[in-house]
Amino acid sequence: MVLLDVIEKKRDGLENSTEEIRAFVKAFVDGELQDAQVSAWMMAICCRGMSEREIADLTLTMMHSGDVIDLSDLPGIKVDKHSTGGVGDTTTLVVAPLVAACGGTVAKMSGRGLAHSGGTLDKLESVPGVCIERSMEDFKHIVRKTGVAVIGQSGDLVPADKKMYALRDVTGTVKSIPLIASSIMSKKLAAGADAIVLDVKTGNGAFMNTFEDSRKLAREMVKLGNNLGRKTVAVITDMNRPLGMAIGNGLEMKEAIEVLTGKVPLSDPLVRVCMILGSYMLKVSGIAETLDDAETKLTEALVSGRGYEKLRAMIEELGGDTSFTDEPEKLADAALCVPIYPEKEGYMGSIDARELGIAAAVLGAGRFKKDDVIDPAVGILMKKRCGDRVAPEEPFAVIYANDEDKLKAAEPMIKGAVVITDEKPEDLPLVYDVIE
Amino acid sequence: MVLLDVIEKKRDGLENSTEEIRAFVKAFVDGELQDAQVSAWMMAICCRGMSEREIADLTLTMMHSGDVIDLSDLPGIKVDKHSTGGVGDTTTLVVAPLVAACGGTVAKMSGRGLAHSGGTLDKLESVPGVCIERSMEDFKHIVRKTGVAVIGQSGDLVPADKKMYALRDVTGTVKSIPLIASSIMSKKLAAGADAIVLDVKTGNGAFMNTFEDSRKLAREMVKLGNNLGRKTVAVITDMNRPLGMAIGNGLEMKEAIEVLTGKVPLSDPLVRVCMILGSYMLKVSGIAETLDDAETKLTEALVSGRGYEKLRAMIEELGGDTSFTDEPEKLADAALCVPIYPEKEGYMGSIDARELGIAAAVLGAGRFKKDDVIDPAVGILMKKRCGDRVAPEEPFAVIYANDEDKLKAAEPMIKGAVVITDEKPEDLPLVYDVIE
Repeated sequence: MVLLDVIEKKRDGLENSTEEIRAFVKAFVDGELQDAQVSAWMMAICCRGMSEREIADLTLTMMHSGDVIDLSDLPGIKVDKHSTGGVGDTTTLVVAPLVAACGGTVAKMSGRGLAHSGGTLDKLESVPGVCIERSMEDFKHIVRKTGVAVIGQSGDLVPADKKMYALRDVTGTVKSIPLIASSIMSKKLAAGADAIVLDVKTGNGAFMNTFEDSRKLAREMVKLGNNLGRKTVAVITDMNRPLGMAIGNGLEMKEAIEVLTGKVPLSDPLVRVCMILGSYMLKVSGIAETLDDAETKLTEALVSGRGYEKLRAMIEELGGDTSFTDEPEKLADAALCVPIYPEKEGYMGSIDARELGIAAAVLGAGRFKKDDVIDPAVGILMKKRCGDRVAPEEPFAVIYANDEDKLKAAEPMIKGAVVITDEKPEDLPLVYDVIE
Repeated sequence: MVLLDVIEKKRDGLENSTEEIRAFVKAFVDGELQDAQVSAWMMAICCRGMSEREIADLTLTMMHSGDVIDLSDLPGIKVDKHSTGGVGDTTTLVVAPLVAACGGTVAKMSGRGLAHSGGTLDKLESVPGVCIERSMEDFKHIVRKTGVAVIGQSGDLVPADKKMYALRDVTGTVKSIPLIASSIMSKKLAAGADAIVLDVKTGNGAFMNTFEDSRKLAREMVKLGNNLGRKTVAVITDMNRPLGMAIGNGLEMKEAIEVLTGKVPLSDPLVRVCMILGSYMLKVSGIAETLDDAETKLTEALVSGRGYEKLRAMIEELGGDTSFTDEPEKLADAALCVPIYPEKEGYMGSIDARELGIAAAVLGAGRFKKDDVIDPAVGILMKKRCGDRVAPEEPFAVIYANDEDKLKAAEPMIKGAVVITDEKPEDLPLVYDVIE
C-alpha cells in the first residue's frame, strides 16, 4: 500500500479502506509519516468527511494505539461521563458524586482546560493537596472505596490521539465531526467504562456552534459507543451562555460544593442539567428504571448531603485538604475582587460564553498553551443571568484576580461579553435533544 | 492577522484576502510556518478551489518571492514556451530553433524530468559537454548571438514554489488547478519573457487526465499571463500516447535532429505539433500575421536546414560536442538493444504513455527522486504507432539499456503498456483546443 494514495483518495472524496486507515495511523504513531502528510489527510477529512464505517475504523485504530483499560474486576456497571467542553460548567463535580451516592460506580479519566473551556482536573486541583496523577491500582482502590474517582489519564492511553490532536490544533483541522467523534470516543472506549453519558454542548461557547453540527456529532458518538457494546447516550445542552455562575477553578469547585450542600435552588440551570445527566447515568447503570425514578433518587442524595459526602471522600482519597471543601470560601481567596457594573439599566440580554471563558483564561484561570500555569483562585463570578434586570448601581459580575495587568486586560472583555437590552430576552432551553 | 485563520477560512470554503495570501506565503518562505500548516492549507485549496482573484494573488506573491528577470535589454519580443509535461515529447528541441530561424527570440529556462515525464535539460545534456547552468550574462549572450537559448534556472527564481512543490509532492496536493497554474505561471512570469505559448497536455500520460481539467488549467494560465501584460496562448494537445517515437534523452535528441534535418515526414505527429506551437510563437512574437503565414515560414526553416543550424549553434554555445549532433547515431550507444515483439497479429490499439514513461525511467532515462542520476543513452524507441498493423515477427519497439536487471524490469512494463486489437483504433486529434 502506498500511503500517499490514502491521502489522495480522501482528497478526491473516495473512502479509505479499513486497511488503509490502520496502516496510515500506525505509520504516523511509528514516526514513519511526516506531520505535513498527516495534516494534509486530516484537512481532506475536514473537507470531504468520512463514512460511518471509516469513522468506526479510525476510532478503533486510535483506541488500540495504546493501553486499553480493563475495569471488569470492579463491581457493578461502570459509568463514564464526558462533556465536549463549555464555560462555567462544573457538572462533573456535582453529578459524579450524586450518582455514586445513589449506588452508581463512576470511574472517569478527565482532562484539562484549553482555550476558553475549563477542565475538571484543574478544578479538582484548586483544593490544596489534590493529586490527580494516579496509578491504575489507586484508581480502582478509590472507585471501590467511594464509588467515584475522577483522575488524570493513567497509562499510555490513545497515543495516536495525542499526536493527532497536537497537529490538529495548529493546522486548522479541529472542527471536523469525524475527527472530533473519533478523538473523544477512542479515549472513552480505551478508558474501559461499560456505559457512557455524553454532554454535547451547542452554542457560541461550545466547540460546535450550531445545533445541527452538535446533533451530527452526538449521533456519530452514540453509534460508535453502542456498536462496541457500551450503552451510550448523548444529551445536547445549551452553551450560548455560561451554565453556572462561576468561571474559574476554585470558584467552580466552590459552586459545586454549594450545589451539593443545598445552597443553590433545585431550579437553578446548573442543578437542572446535573439532574438530567445524572438521571441518564443512573438509567444506563441499571439503577433507575425511569428518568423520574432517577431524579427522585438524585434529589434525595443531594438534599440529604450524601452527594457532598461522596465528593469530600473522593477529594480526601486524592490527598486533598478537606478543610477547603468544608469552608469553600477559602477556595476564592484572590487578592483583588472587583465588581463590574452594567452601563445602563435594562435586562441581561445575552452573554457571550466563549468571550467570558477567554477573559477568565486571561486572568489566569485557563491555558492558551498546554504548559501555561493555572491560578486556582482567579476567575469571574456572575451575579446576574440572562433575563435578570440590571441597574448601574448593581454589579453584574465580580472579577477575582491576583494581577493588576491581567485584571485590566480582562475587564473590558467581560463588559464586551454582555449585552444589556430594553426588552427581556427569550429563554433558551437547557436541553435541546437526547440521542440514545 | 492570525495565520491559522487563513487555513480555517479556506477549509470552510471562504476566500482568502490578498493580504492573507501574501502573509501566509511570506511566513512559509521565511520559515515561520510549519510544513504541516502549509500542507493543510494546500489540501484545503485542493478541496475547495480558489477564485480567479486568489489565484492571481498567489501567482504574484510566488513570482515576487525571489528574483524577477529583466530581459528588456535584449532586442525584439522574447517568447517562452512551456509544456505541462509528457512522454516522448521533444517539441522544445525542434520548435525553439525553428522559431529562432524565422527571426524569433526564444529565451527559455527549462526544467528536468520527474516520474514518467521527460525534461528538456536532461535531453540537452545527452550531448557531451553541454552545460545548462549559465549566468544571466551568458544566457543573454547566447540569445543575442543565436536567437535561442534554453538553459537551467538562473538566479533565485520563485523560491516559494520550490518549497511548496517539495511539500505538495509528498502530501497528495499536486493535483489542483489553482496550485498548478500558480506554480507554472509564477515561474514563467519571473523568467521575464514578453510572450508565452503553453502546451497543455491532456490524456493518460499527462498530469491532467481529463480534457475538462486541462481546459480549466489552460484558461487560468492564459488569464494570468494576459492580465499581467504577457501575450499568452495555450494549445491543448494529446498525451494519450507518446507524441514522438523516442522515449529517453539521447534518443529524443536524436529524433529532434532527425526532424530538423528532414528525415521525418512533415505529416508526422511530432512535426505537426511543433508546427502548431511554433506558429503561435511566431504570431505572439509579431513575426507572422496569420497561422498559415507562420507555418510557411517554419516549413522553409526546416526544409532549408536553418532550423538545425540554430540547434547546433545553441548546443555549441552551451559547450556541447557538435560531432554528436552531426552524427546523431552516437547519441544512442546503449550496450543492449533488445527488440520487443507483439504477442499476436493485429493493430496497435492503444499505448499507455504514462506506463512507457515509467518503463523508460526504470531503464535509467528518468528520475523517481530528484537526485537520481540519468543515463542519457537508454530508453525506448517505438517502431509502431497507434493504428499501425503489427505481426509477431516484427518488433513494435526496441529497448536501449545498459543494465540487464533494469532491462528485465522494464520489458514486461513495455509489453503491458500496449494493447493489440483486431480492429483498427480510431484516430485521436493532436490538438483539442486553443485558448487565446
